[in-house]
Amino acid sequence: MLAEIITIGDEILIGQIVDTNSAWMAKQLNLIGVSVKQITSVSDEEQHILSSLAEAEKRADIILITGGLGPTKDDITKKTLAKYFGMGFRRDEGALEMVASIFKKFNRPLLDINIQQADVPDGCEVIVNRNGTAPCMWFEQNNKIFVSMPGVPYEMMYLMDDEILPRIKSRFQLPSIVHKTILTANIGESFLAAEIEEIEDNLPSHIKLAYLPKLGQVRLRLSAKGDDENALKTEVKIYAQQIISKVNKFVVIDEDIPLEKAILNMMKERGLTLSTAESCTGGYIAHLITQHPGCSSVYWGGAVAYAYELKESILGVKEGTLAKFGAVSEETIVEMAEGALKHFKTDYAIAVSGIAGPDGGTVDKPVGTVWIAIASKAKTLAKVFNFSNKRIQNIERSAASALVMLLNLLREDLHKE
Amino acid sequence: MLAEIITIGDEILIGQIVDTNSAWMAKQLNLIGVSVKQITSVSDEEQHILSSLAEAEKRADIILITGGLGPTKDDITKKTLAKYFGMGFRRDEGALEMVASIFKKFNRPLLDINIQQADVPDGCEVIVNRNGTAPCMWFEQNNKIFVSMPGVPYEMMYLMDDEILPRIKSRFQLPSIVHKTILTANIGESFLAAEIEEIEDNLPSHIKLAYLPKLGQVRLRLSAKGDDENALKTEVKIYAQQIISKVNKFVVIDEDIPLEKAILNMMKERGLTLSTAESCTGGYIAHLITQHPGCSSVYWGGAVAYAYELKESILGVKEGTLAKFGAVSEETIVEMAEGALKHFKTDYAIAVSGIAGPDGGTVDKPVGTVWIAIASKAKTLAKVFNFSNKRIQNIERSAASALVMLLNLLREDLHKE
Repeated sequence: MLAEIITIGDEILIGQIVDTNSAWMAKQLNLIGVSVKQITSVSDEEQHILSSLAEAEKRADIILITGGLGPTKDDITKKTLAKYFGMGFRRDEGALEMVASIFKKFNRPLLDINIQQADVPDGCEVIVNRNGTAPCMWFEQNNKIFVSMPGVPYEMMYLMDDEILPRIKSRFQLPSIVHKTILTANIGESFLAAEIEEIEDNLPSHIKLAYLPKLGQVRLRLSAKGDDENALKTEVKIYAQQIISKVNKFVVIDEDIPLEKAILNMMKERGLTLSTAESCTGGYIAHLITQHPGCSSVYWGGAVAYAYELKESILGVKEGTLAKFGAVSEETIVEMAEGALKHFKTDYAIAVSGIAGPDGGTVDKPVGTVWIAIASKAKTLAKVFNFSNKRIQNIERSAASALVMLLNLLREDLHKE
Repeated sequence: MLAEIITIGDEILIGQIVDTNSAWMAKQLNLIGVSVKQITSVSDEEQHILSSLAEAEKRADIILITGGLGPTKDDITKKTLAKYFGMGFRRDEGALEMVASIFKKFNRPLLDINIQQADVPDGCEVIVNRNGTAPCMWFEQNNKIFVSMPGVPYEMMYLMDDEILPRIKSRFQLPSIVHKTILTANIGESFLAAEIEEIEDNLPSHIKLAYLPKLGQVRLRLSAKGDDENALKTEVKIYAQQIISKVNKFVVIDEDIPLEKAILNMMKERGLTLSTAESCTGGYIAHLITQHPGCSSVYWGGAVAYAYELKESILGVKEGTLAKFGAVSEETIVEMAEGALKHFKTDYAIAVSGIAGPDGGTVDKPVGTVWIAIASKAKTLAKVFNFSNKRIQNIERSAASALVMLLNLLREDLHKE
């Protein structure tokens, strides 16, 4: 079963927003055994939308469309879909009721353009959108399904979870797809490939192996497709186990979860706690950690100590240390990490201080210089990195490196247990 | 001048990664007057890549391709491009030198699969990639340009900035595109549209208006296309001014910058300082702020106070308040904001505490209940919100709402000056 995703709207094509919807939708579709053949972003132009619909219809069985359903004049998805299917318009009472109730809830007058949001192509089935004023529309033609959804992420997500995915599941006999992901760190993609070459060469044709490198970590993903889910699972498990045995010391976890989540799981299992002391990463590490439900049993919190004053008052860094060595130094980072450990009373602490850029670099400490320390009750490890001159990347790479350092120290400590 | 972007690789199609590259590339292309007609993500399958190249060649003048250039077997972009253009292979000495120097730098042995990264289709021009082992390849056919780049974001970004964009600019006579963005808050999309309907109806055909709603803010974007950049700027400015006059009280700023950056600018201009006290947003507000260069003159830092203990020790929230009213309450949030103001010695402080979910909800305080307070020396404002049951959205919407509250208080205070 193949699906395609079409996003409509100039904002993606001019780079004003990143298309996070499609990745989310693709992930959900894959989980129920629907492969996504192509993701296409097109502009708010009738001809372009019409031709991309026709092309997608040739390739796929299910076409999911987001965007272009707002009440304003630049949104033409509904009109264009009516043209594509040769339909007229009708006013949908259920959709109108929903629009009216939303405006009533916020005590706002119902405008004509809002009422028009309940006008839909007359041959579609309306799926009520409980979180917004644009209705979701389900079309069928030549045994293919087209669904048009709003581009607002949470409206789309509710519709997919509550309505679209269950309908697709009950409608089709779906093949099974089994993925197995192994997260590795401390080894580059090509070294990993050389290590497991023989295993890769012997994979059967219905099992694929992909390498997904990101910020010093490489994810290995085995994907198997077939009819018998349990057989696929067994098979994939055997190959995953071969890989894990071969590159064991680089394996972080054999689950498709981010590094920080693997660390949280490891620490939670052992009742360990964590705090952070961030300067140049500015809360990004805390944010990575706190995205995950249940993090609070491990992560107690931390400081975003941008100003010298806060490094001193919250973390207890000595004024003299900052004056003599500067904020980006081994001496300061060690005091930050140990200060977090002491003041926040956790078992482990991460500290990061660096020059994220684009300004603030010197000859001795150019932009991209980042000190990272990990403290535990037994010891503190500090290391300096030289990243790039791009701010956002420096923040992301600092966070990833800090997490890898924490992982390595945790493993060392657990090994001693 | 039209461009298309093709990303190759299963990781986007199975939703394992979000395609941030394409948005970044589209933005850079638009700035130099190249419109992006379509963005397409296709799988690592030869036939699919070939047909998407052929389709893109029909529609666009410049085709930018990312991904599928790794050393491992699942990456087939290079082979497929050679087939598309009917080329053989040659070993590129410049590319080989770069690969060898990278391995030398990291003191690692050069493997066969790494040497093979220097093999390229023989009719392409190699553009050396200074940040990775996969070379960038420039092809020309039928007066169209194809560029293949690695999918690793920072490798692609350097190549675009340093090589590809300058070459495109010097090669083509590009039309001018002028964008003007107006950021609004505290008003919904349809009300905004109703307010400025007359202005929108009178726009000339070469100027388009788009509405980009996100988390309680709406961006209005005027886009003009033509030959005379100065004339376009003047024209767009006039229409932008008409819109701003009409909906003045909802306008945050008339620049294409995020809300937190607008706030930073406003505060910097007046020498004001800011701190944060985050519980459920877990450092996300700090991260939003510290993404921006130069934020340190306004933003001093803050606390991520997840545990009760840290709310007390860093922010001075009283144990009795937490015991009596809980962490998610008006009493606690006021103490958090006022504690940040006092302990971090800033002019303004943001505090957020809520139940991000999916667990932790109660009948009285369901998941999505979030208290936000903004404190200044003169006053503290606190407000409760009821968001959704999705964790990441609750974090993002809490942050956006906190920033809008801060903006409103800042405006009120500045108005009094």
